[in-house]
Amino acid sequence: MEQLLLRHSGGETPIDFAPDLVADPAPLLRHLPAGARLRIVTDSNVAPLHAVALAGRLRGAGREVSLSVLPAGEEHKTLATASALLDELLTGGIRRDDRVVAVGGGVVGDVAGFAAALALRGVPCVQVPTTLLAMVDSAVGGKTGVDHATGKNRIGVFSQPSAVVVAPAFLGTLPAREVTAGLAEMVKSAMLAGEAEVEGVGGWLAAGRPAPALGLRIREAVALKVRIVESDEREAGPRRVLNLGHTLGHALEAATGYTRLRHGEAVAWGLLFALRLSASLGILPAAEEARLSSLVRSVGPLPGIADLDWKSLLPLLRLDKKAGAAGVAFVLLEAPGRPRVVLDPPPERLAEAYEAVRSGIF
Amino acid sequence: MEQLLLRHSGGETPIDFAPDLVADPAPLLRHLPAGARLRIVTDSNVAPLHAVALAGRLRGAGREVSLSVLPAGEEHKTLATASALLDELLTGGIRRDDRVVAVGGGVVGDVAGFAAALALRGVPCVQVPTTLLAMVDSAVGGKTGVDHATGKNRIGVFSQPSAVVVAPAFLGTLPAREVTAGLAEMVKSAMLAGEAEVEGVGGWLAAGRPAPALGLRIREAVALKVRIVESDEREAGPRRVLNLGHTLGHALEAATGYTRLRHGEAVAWGLLFALRLSASLGILPAAEEARLSSLVRSVGPLPGIADLDWKSLLPLLRLDKKAGAAGVAFVLLEAPGRPRVVLDPPPERLAEAYEAVRSGIF
Repeated sequence: MEQLLLRHSGGETPIDFAPDLVADPAPLLRHLPAGARLRIVTDSNVAPLHAVALAGRLRGAGREVSLSVLPAGEEHKTLATASALLDELLTGGIRRDDRVVAVGGGVVGDVAGFAAALALRGVPCVQVPTTLLAMVDSAVGGKTGVDHATGKNRIGVFSQPSAVVVAPAFLGTLPAREVTAGLAEMVKSAMLAGEAEVEGVGGWLAAGRPAPALGLRIREAVALKVRIVESDEREAGPRRVLNLGHTLGHALEAATGYTRLRHGEAVAWGLLFALRLSASLGILPAAEEARLSSLVRSVGPLPGIADLDWKSLLPLLRLDKKAGAAGVAFVLLEAPGRPRVVLDPPPERLAEAYEAVRSGIF
Repeated sequence: MEQLLLRHSGGETPIDFAPDLVADPAPLLRHLPAGARLRIVTDSNVAPLHAVALAGRLRGAGREVSLSVLPAGEEHKTLATASALLDELLTGGIRRDDRVVAVGGGVVGDVAGFAAALALRGVPCVQVPTTLLAMVDSAVGGKTGVDHATGKNRIGVFSQPSAVVVAPAFLGTLPAREVTAGLAEMVKSAMLAGEAEVEGVGGWLAAGRPAPALGLRIREAVALKVRIVESDEREAGPRRVLNLGHTLGHALEAATGYTRLRHGEAVAWGLLFALRLSASLGILPAAEEARLSSLVRSVGPLPGIADLDWKSLLPLLRLDKKAGAAGVAFVLLEAPGRPRVVLDPPPERLAEAYEAVRSGIF
């Protein structure tokens, strides 16, 4: 599939699509200069499934490869984990012309990209996402970082990867919940992109997600993200629309200690909430709310949130990174492809919309 | 004194010169938007001398001010200190439209700038340097970060301050060794700038550093730095010349555990070494070496390094952040204003130059 190119303040990031990097690592090797030593960063889940095999293939191609294995799980996405990784990179004698290669899901990509950005004030990082969520969202766009006791991703930097290589073969081992989480971000992306994309992903989900079209669906989501990030690398304005479903999503994750809900699952709840709120404020027609909510529900079953009341979420919403002195901004939807940012909607509407959503049967 | 403007990839940083911010904080207030809450970051030395008084003046001007006090000293320039500061910023509820105000020397500026860059992926930071070294060097240019067991400043990011305000009144309380350290960077700057600057700073030092010209001398050094950083924000090439004296300097600091030598003192030794090596390689005429070395010596007495042998420094040189697969680069001098980067000079010349310098009486 044709390469995408993300132009940014520091140059440009090529995004390549390759069927299977373990079978044929050439599309990855192309982004790893001959003299560069390679530090693969992965986690304890992905190491035995893919990363060790990939390291072997790269060594077989004559490359010098070392491996850092992070503990798996969002609960380890901390400054302490990044600090331990930095210790490994620096005591391993990493140089600015080496490459960090992040092989894993969103947590691995965020932590590896963050540590690479900080080591020697910047060692280039190649992102090799192994989950659907990372492929369609987190591996592209240069957001790196870790969580903090006060909220998700509250410590980090914008640092664009030197390249991204998307290889759907990695998805063969992905647990069902991770697939659901990735599909939620894919649906978000389609709703931001436009009617054609909504119909495309909707038809594909309804048809039981036929495998041959998976690559195309991923590329479609990545292409949208590239377009939006190029328009606003540092999230000063337009890029905020990518947070559709995320303001509530982040609060739900925080309220449940980052254990009950995967990020994409929380975003799915957040999308339902955003659609409900959009309709409640008269921004989105009721029929469209029904159609799009049903699209969101078609991603798969979600862990319930009926026990979380609005009052407990409210202070967590106010902690949103994008919150300024002016208040909390919500990304709402007028129609597919027409997001609208609304600052501090009426509190009673927020509460109503949440009540309507949390008790919903998924 | 007229404002300088540093243009960079993220916009532009105004650099203002004001006599005394505690007497009149207006030149600082101008860079702090009305709605922004202010988090002054300082250290345990500067807090009682200046920062608490400055906080009082800003509160008097109706601003919401909180204070974070770091433990003083290069030995605390660590990821652990930055992490503790991040905890304070985030649990304090900092927002992206607030301002971090770094009030202190190089360590405070580097750590505060680093933590501000990481908090919420970037809270603007205003640099208010209180040491000569920070005024002429570290507060300008966007290098932020912390030290690591493997070397100085090995963890960090490029993040330009939103403004810099240079107020020489802070220097009234500066210990003599800190003055010497700052003068060493000032002399480095003059040697990189050209003959006029070398004569300017040389005459001023010879005349006993008359106070009225101090502001001008600082501005001259800052103006050079602005010019070089604008030409090469990320240190891909031209900016490396600012490392004149620093390759050996960093190794000396590391070899003595960052306790014996202040950064500027180490740089002074590094400048003498660079001049000796330049002459030894036939790049710099012997008479010029003598004249410029005497200028370096006029900054003040330095702690000795006679007990440090070349063999123990060599592995530390190889750890230089700018070292690539190709080797270690030294910035040498052909004449004032004409630096030249030399990759891996002959090992015996390096050793000879160091031997000649380390036994020198200061």
